[in-house]
Amino acid sequence: MSEKTSFYPDWTSEPPRPGTYRSIFKWGDPSAFKHPNRRLYVLLKEQFQMSDADFKQKQHEGNEPVRCEIPSRLTAEQVNAFRGIVGQENVAADDYSRVKYSSGKTMEEIMKLRSGIVDEVPDLVLHPRNKDDVEKVVKYCNEQMISIYPYGGGSSVTLGLRCVQGGVSLALSTHMNRVLEFNEADQTVTVEPGILGPAYEAILNDAPAKLNAKRRYTGGHFPQSFEYSSVGGWIAALGSGQQSSYYGDMYSIVLSQEYVTPAGSFKTHVYPGTATGPKVNDMMKGSEGAYGVLVSATLRVFRYTPENRQRFAFIFPTWEAAVDGAREISQGEFGMPSVFRISDPEETVVALRLYGVEGTFIDKIMTLRGYKPMQRCLYIGQGDGERGFARNMKKNVKKICRDYGAMYITGYPLKNWEHGRFADPYMREDLNDFSIMIDTLETGVTWSNFHNLYKGVRGLVKSRPKTVCMTHASHFYPQGTNLYFIFIARMNDIDEYRAFQEAIIDQIQRYGGSLSHHHGIGKMIAPWMELHLGKAQMEVLRTLKRHFDPNNIMNPGGTLGLDLPDSRKRPASK
Amino acid sequence: MSEKTSFYPDWTSEPPRPGTYRSIFKWGDPSAFKHPNRRLYVLLKEQFQMSDADFKQKQHEGNEPVRCEIPSRLTAEQVNAFRGIVGQENVAADDYSRVKYSSGKTMEEIMKLRSGIVDEVPDLVLHPRNKDDVEKVVKYCNEQMISIYPYGGGSSVTLGLRCVQGGVSLALSTHMNRVLEFNEADQTVTVEPGILGPAYEAILNDAPAKLNAKRRYTGGHFPQSFEYSSVGGWIAALGSGQQSSYYGDMYSIVLSQEYVTPAGSFKTHVYPGTATGPKVNDMMKGSEGAYGVLVSATLRVFRYTPENRQRFAFIFPTWEAAVDGAREISQGEFGMPSVFRISDPEETVVALRLYGVEGTFIDKIMTLRGYKPMQRCLYIGQGDGERGFARNMKKNVKKICRDYGAMYITGYPLKNWEHGRFADPYMREDLNDFSIMIDTLETGVTWSNFHNLYKGVRGLVKSRPKTVCMTHASHFYPQGTNLYFIFIARMNDIDEYRAFQEAIIDQIQRYGGSLSHHHGIGKMIAPWMELHLGKAQMEVLRTLKRHFDPNNIMNPGGTLGLDLPDSRKRPASK
Repeated sequence: MSEKTSFYPDWTSEPPRPGTYRSIFKWGDPSAFKHPNRRLYVLLKEQFQMSDADFKQKQHEGNEPVRCEIPSRLTAEQVNAFRGIVGQENVAADDYSRVKYSSGKTMEEIMKLRSGIVDEVPDLVLHPRNKDDVEKVVKYCNEQMISIYPYGGGSSVTLGLRCVQGGVSLALSTHMNRVLEFNEADQTVTVEPGILGPAYEAILNDAPAKLNAKRRYTGGHFPQSFEYSSVGGWIAALGSGQQSSYYGDMYSIVLSQEYVTPAGSFKTHVYPGTATGPKVNDMMKGSEGAYGVLVSATLRVFRYTPENRQRFAFIFPTWEAAVDGAREISQGEFGMPSVFRISDPEETVVALRLYGVEGTFIDKIMTLRGYKPMQRCLYIGQGDGERGFARNMKKNVKKICRDYGAMYITGYPLKNWEHGRFADPYMREDLNDFSIMIDTLETGVTWSNFHNLYKGVRGLVKSRPKTVCMTHASHFYPQGTNLYFIFIARMNDIDEYRAFQEAIIDQIQRYGGSLSHHHGIGKMIAPWMELHLGKAQMEVLRTLKRHFDPNNIMNPGGTLGLDLPDSRKRPASK
Repeated sequence: MSEKTSFYPDWTSEPPRPGTYRSIFKWGDPSAFKHPNRRLYVLLKEQFQMSDADFKQKQHEGNEPVRCEIPSRLTAEQVNAFRGIVGQENVAADDYSRVKYSSGKTMEEIMKLRSGIVDEVPDLVLHPRNKDDVEKVVKYCNEQMISIYPYGGGSSVTLGLRCVQGGVSLALSTHMNRVLEFNEADQTVTVEPGILGPAYEAILNDAPAKLNAKRRYTGGHFPQSFEYSSVGGWIAALGSGQQSSYYGDMYSIVLSQEYVTPAGSFKTHVYPGTATGPKVNDMMKGSEGAYGVLVSATLRVFRYTPENRQRFAFIFPTWEAAVDGAREISQGEFGMPSVFRISDPEETVVALRLYGVEGTFIDKIMTLRGYKPMQRCLYIGQGDGERGFARNMKKNVKKICRDYGAMYITGYPLKNWEHGRFADPYMREDLNDFSIMIDTLETGVTWSNFHNLYKGVRGLVKSRPKTVCMTHASHFYPQGTNLYFIFIARMNDIDEYRAFQEAIIDQIQRYGGSLSHHHGIGKMIAPWMELHLGKAQMEVLRTLKRHFDPNNIMNPGGTLGLDLPDSRKRPASK
């Protein structure tokens, strides 16, 4: 089959018109795009048995102006009170604000917005200026029983931002996005929660000029949502960046936090280590705005040394060999690679196209040596840290990969991945425009349960005809890793999508995966929480909820499954 | 002054008679001893202005048989109920058991036992056989409102084991000391809480024979109390071992736990990473038996590779240089040394004697090069992990030490330290026999507050005439370290001792140290907890307490400050 095709879809390359649904759900920079390349386009048609004709008419583009006809439940007096607290200019009640500041990037939300379906919006959007504003808002809302929904970068993929019970959405990135303190001796930085990834990283990289530092630093946290997610969101949903195998996840990066809760405000101490009982600082991590509002956080920072970076890529003969090799690397005690990603055979096919390996000299050699498509697996990696450390790590990785039958294919695929690492989500709009649903679910798993879980979930996804299931593992620990499933299918019916997604989450639960490795729970996975953690642990989370938020004003309506009625909980038998 | 002295004290080298107070408070193996060597003896006389005559008559040796005249508060029916649960042979009500299983190694406890003062004992000692026994005991105690005090290895130095309200002491190391599961693929082991350090480490080291494993492993946790402390105790009090800079502290080593609480039993999942809300597994760590009884734990294990070990020692010209060098090493991103210890000038004097450097050729060179006693500081270190990793780490350490003016003094001092690493506590009895009190307090601190805290605490201790204050830092992080103060003085009055200790804890709090880095809080530091953490955080800990243990039967009487009346809390003004 020729990969040349005279027809190539007219992917949308115009920024969405301001005020439209599309301007809300489109990922990232309004004027940035990443379209499927011609090789991928061919693959799409193959996979979904679609023809060029199917890519001529876009559907449900969401180009209409946002309309929200849900009446506000707030009284004029209440609205005035909020104006008095945060200032007139920081209160918004317009349709667009109400929809924007209650929408994340969950597939379900996007499907709805494309169809102009609006629900679960706040009555008012507030843009607090500082901790003092937040304290007053929380106090007032607690008195008036008005729900509060914190909103950071807006990148939630778990229905985390839905304002189920109306009330107010707190837009934290508008003003509360400052660096409050930098301590070079301790290698810590204290920031407000609304600072977004690029601003956070830029100020650290440029620390000598911006922070009067002796060195340059990095935050070490690079989720795929980096460009449009906030430090507060990373903490609230327990994020892990693409370099977490080396730098650690948010849980380990955050040293101290300051919260405003209905039960009062507090700030935890900054200690590198302490043995003063259970750690309240850690209890708040992952609370997804259900216990209170994070108003500042002190994070560990790392030396920024791109000059030491080591890049590498290998092709393994099989998925089993790739997993065994990855485990050996993770347990080898020579330090961890920073970027560390193995793709299963199905993802490898796409990745080799995406990262420009397919059709090259390397591709020919691979094939000649017997690394067969739909068996072979791509491993890309990067080393950071001190130069000798990174080099010694790479040397060990190379040896292990050879031991497991892998072939070195240079640092080129990593470079290509690096180049597009934050851009892949931009392709979602293009696929969705032609009714191709693309979504992900991810889970944490031990090595000993890895293949069982992989087969269980993949088996289910692939049992649906014409459905792509690309899987990778990209966060590694000596005890295991994560599994990240990307599923793609021609599907634009919300109910069909929901049923499909539910079946996959059921399967993750049934096969012993964690309900999430780094996206969090939000309101989407909430129904599985009690089944997953058990009633005893859920009662602990609810006890803390009642302590911090006795009136259930903080992100109510399902978050973490804290306030779900039994009827909404996933039963064990399912 | 000559270091030869014709007189050398007749240190006790006889095992204590069974049934005596001394057999309870003597550290470690009854027939093992480590006496101050002649150089140290000379130093003692100098420091405390004592003469040989002062070392002729031992005082309060505690050689009397244990007597306990506190009547039991349990009814015959209750005692029978316990016999029915754990079996007749696993219930003890004799004086010796009651005193032994409520005594730790806190200086205050030892002073009391030497004087035959007995208080805060349990009515009964139970030796549960398994989780099932513990569940029945907890259920029964909760119904009958009988207090439960878990007891692991008995090495608490925070009054953690005092049975303030009588009830039952649960001796967990008698039977509940088994390995329940070993998972080599995941590098995890699941054990009961009562397994002691040496048994735990031995089975891992010998994994090929004992666990049918492919490799040998290590637990990586070596507190000074290693030989007489339990895995459960390590977790309950948030321990850090002497190699924690590389292997991590107990908080990071424990993957999952199983608890029996008055509110029910639960076991947390084993995941290498998960984003399913606040982590109940972590909330239980450090709860010091106040929330429930730990009945099993799954821990990360590491490859045992002594053949890769790197050893080194340096002498720094000043404390400031040593601290700066240690910080540079901790932030250098070439991996951490495993053993990592810097001693302040006063400790260095003693350490050089203890580790056999004083008087050697190296000592002469050091002095010749201008490293002056009471200015120079010893740094000893060890590298573990993969061979290339450990070598590269050592190479970087050497470079940094040179940059900060340090002289390499070979791996010899480390080897000597290693040899005696668990033996130093044996000297306490010798000193105490001649009314010399030796005790420690320790704290976590950021780099930026290091010297402020050091000076604040040391200044106070040294303001007391004829008082030794030796200080080291031995657990390192990029953000800071710990400070471990050893204070020695001629003192055998309990009230004087208490006032002195209180003043030091006050000073730690005042100068911004953590109340403990790795000993925990127990009932000793409990009065400072609310002042330290603030009321808001203490309320969180109390909320969890009420949830798990509404009748306050779990380790009641001050633990973590959870149930202290305001009158017992340290006020801010002190």
